[in-house]
Amino acid sequence: MTQYEQLADEIHALIRSGSLRVGDRLPSVRTCSERRKISQSTVFQAYYLLESRGVVQARARSGYYVTPRAQDPLKGPETSRPSLETQTVAINDLVVEILNLSRRHEVIPLGSAFPDPALFPLDRLARSLGAAMRRLPPRKLLEDLTTGHLRLRQQVAQRYAVDGIHADVDDIVITSGAMDALNLSLQAITEPGDLVLVEAPTFYASLQAIERLKLRALQLPTSPAEGVDLAAMEAALASGTVRACWFMPTFQNPLGALIPESRKQAMAELLARYQVPLIEDDVYGDLYAGTHKPRPIKAFDKQGWVIHCASFSKNLAPGYRVGWACAGRWTRAIERLKVMSSLSASVPPQAAISDYLAQGGFDLHLRRLRKTLALQRDVMLDAIAESFPPGTRVTRPQGGYFLWLELAPHIDAIELMRQALTAGVSLMPGPLFSADQRFAHCIRLNFGAAPAHEVTRATHILGALVRALAAEGRTDSTPA
Amino acid sequence: MTQYEQLADEIHALIRSGSLRVGDRLPSVRTCSERRKISQSTVFQAYYLLESRGVVQARARSGYYVTPRAQDPLKGPETSRPSLETQTVAINDLVVEILNLSRRHEVIPLGSAFPDPALFPLDRLARSLGAAMRRLPPRKLLEDLTTGHLRLRQQVAQRYAVDGIHADVDDIVITSGAMDALNLSLQAITEPGDLVLVEAPTFYASLQAIERLKLRALQLPTSPAEGVDLAAMEAALASGTVRACWFMPTFQNPLGALIPESRKQAMAELLARYQVPLIEDDVYGDLYAGTHKPRPIKAFDKQGWVIHCASFSKNLAPGYRVGWACAGRWTRAIERLKVMSSLSASVPPQAAISDYLAQGGFDLHLRRLRKTLALQRDVMLDAIAESFPPGTRVTRPQGGYFLWLELAPHIDAIELMRQALTAGVSLMPGPLFSADQRFAHCIRLNFGAAPAHEVTRATHILGALVRALAAEGRTDSTPA
Repeated sequence: MTQYEQLADEIHALIRSGSLRVGDRLPSVRTCSERRKISQSTVFQAYYLLESRGVVQARARSGYYVTPRAQDPLKGPETSRPSLETQTVAINDLVVEILNLSRRHEVIPLGSAFPDPALFPLDRLARSLGAAMRRLPPRKLLEDLTTGHLRLRQQVAQRYAVDGIHADVDDIVITSGAMDALNLSLQAITEPGDLVLVEAPTFYASLQAIERLKLRALQLPTSPAEGVDLAAMEAALASGTVRACWFMPTFQNPLGALIPESRKQAMAELLARYQVPLIEDDVYGDLYAGTHKPRPIKAFDKQGWVIHCASFSKNLAPGYRVGWACAGRWTRAIERLKVMSSLSASVPPQAAISDYLAQGGFDLHLRRLRKTLALQRDVMLDAIAESFPPGTRVTRPQGGYFLWLELAPHIDAIELMRQALTAGVSLMPGPLFSADQRFAHCIRLNFGAAPAHEVTRATHILGALVRALAAEGRTDSTPA
Repeated sequence: MTQYEQLADEIHALIRSGSLRVGDRLPSVRTCSERRKISQSTVFQAYYLLESRGVVQARARSGYYVTPRAQDPLKGPETSRPSLETQTVAINDLVVEILNLSRRHEVIPLGSAFPDPALFPLDRLARSLGAAMRRLPPRKLLEDLTTGHLRLRQQVAQRYAVDGIHADVDDIVITSGAMDALNLSLQAITEPGDLVLVEAPTFYASLQAIERLKLRALQLPTSPAEGVDLAAMEAALASGTVRACWFMPTFQNPLGALIPESRKQAMAELLARYQVPLIEDDVYGDLYAGTHKPRPIKAFDKQGWVIHCASFSKNLAPGYRVGWACAGRWTRAIERLKVMSSLSASVPPQAAISDYLAQGGFDLHLRRLRKTLALQRDVMLDAIAESFPPGTRVTRPQGGYFLWLELAPHIDAIELMRQALTAGVSLMPGPLFSADQRFAHCIRLNFGAAPAHEVTRATHILGALVRALAAEGRTDSTPA
């Protein structure tokens, strides 16, 4: 844990214990710096972090004040306790059924996997599409087919460099979105029957990939705030039976968990010690609510055990299906699997994104997108506090656009989903995110998939449905 | 065999036997129609077919004349005689090595898998990209993600209807190029260890897919003119061990073979009788040198045993990676595999192609492309006749853009390729197209990959290299 994280946690504890109350002002940055003998910038970082957690708020020329939300009645869910047994996975039918159900309705798409497409610079991308393709020499259409558009790979490598990560242009394979990169990576490093470590809950695509490649999964206990349990990970690696890990260490889907950097570093060291590759799914890294971009595990990967997968689908160009794997020693293997399965990613979207990046404006767009998402997170949290029954637990992620809710134990999330679809709201039920279909009373909500007023309305609709289901449960358990 | 094919073959036989000689005029259409008691249109079709074979030539207001090429010294290769044993496949290392070798050189790309990109309406497509994406409502970026752009699927269905094939819009899954469609189809209908029938030689991507999915291949004897041997196919199906077929019945890669329609119909009946699905790779169907588009086996598939895969990569938009499977009962399975592996094809290229198709002009473009390719076929055949040693055998395909050459038995095509790359010309060596790396003295040449004068120059370069290798061979076999 860094110094500023430690300071933030100490202040957060003071708030939780009531030593600091709603409306209280934090010590000024200068005062705190002098008393603690730490730099002002460290104090600033701690205060920013607390602000991103929603527990303090800056007032112009005045200071930082404890917010009403700091003593919010909504608690976060506990760390998961998945089965300790390895699992063969059969999640696919359920995923398809639920995706199809969601598609059949005109809804406010809180079940969506993407932010609202209206939040993206689609017009500028459309111009880049036309312009880049008019400019492209015809032969370039075929030249970069296998590894991907050279200029785009250079731009991706530059963005890694800005984040303090060395990535060789030749280690980057452009794929049809991150999912293609993740799947090809898993295929490149496993054989049927191999054991793969995943989070619990975990993104259903990883479970589908594990099912499709006939692998086995071991789910690790995972904290909704801070991700995979390090001790459990080490114990599994020490058993010598693990072939690969597939984690999303930054704003995990569905929990929103962010593994602290100190722990990411420890994980990179574990991977190197046990020589087990990690597929790092990092599609939400740019969507942080705090002040700086969290570094991926790849940043601490000195010996090349991390395959870093990301895309432009969640931060710039949904539907363009442009992602990549930065894969070190596995690059050629992944490239070969790519050529065999679909030859290459489509050229025009790559050329368009490259043109867009070259013109500048991406970072400005990202700042706006982050601001909107952070705002909408609080909008949805407020709406949940207003309308959901007491006892509801909900995450407060420091980035991304998902909340994870734990409802009363007797509430069936799939039944809730059916009722919600009829009422005009989609959601993702918990069992999708588990190899053994746990989390039956949990749901994932997307706070970025619709404008704020629709998010509020849809959350209120869900709240009413959950209250009704909760009441039914109480009636059921009281004999007439 | 249809009536017109029969008539064409009879006339062709007269030419071969010398009864009709270079410069002779065929009977007029009316005369022939009256004597044979067949319709004038049947005679026309027969004459067109002979023209597409290059043995007669129409002169305006005069009639059809036997061409010099009709008694060409170049013979076609014989029907292949592959091993009768099933094969596990390990072709992938060779394919990757050769693709990489080709990429490292600035060459006239006779080894290319695509026509010259300059032959495509890239500017109009670029305009369609920008226009279609500016017009697209943002939410549409996510709506059609899994099955593909609805309007494009409708347009594809309409093109099937024009070809006399009923295809339901919901049976069409848009994929990242035809290769994605072919791979997902094979995955949907097989389990590891299953036996798949392929042609010999066959497109290496089918061998790579068979290798990747841990299937076994049985290669069938294949005529360079007329494709897979029907009796061999039936014998294999009758054994009860075949799980699937993967053929390219129209302008097969690498042979250019076109299975006659009567035989396609018989094949559809065989598939139905033995209840074995066929993956029909039909990416060259639009590129016919004759007067009408050859119907795919799918046109004769009454009971739904054919998965028809095609794309826009070879006829409209190389590098856009937009293909599809028309898959009947397997549509949902393929769609699911697609969602799991890469979610969906990229949206902008789909929207652009849909916009282009809606504006009209595709058929005009195709007519021009076909004319250019047919012309360049003859350009390359002339250059081969001029520069390759006697005894060289070469196909005379009725469409597509590949020639298949059988050189003297002692010539090593991979060695020839290395020399050719150094001399500035790429080619595809025969062993790539075989599970057991036969065809060591065969090569595939692309007559559409460069302008005519470059094709001629490159072919002459190859001819000189082949002559030198042929002479070396003779020297070697003569003891000093």
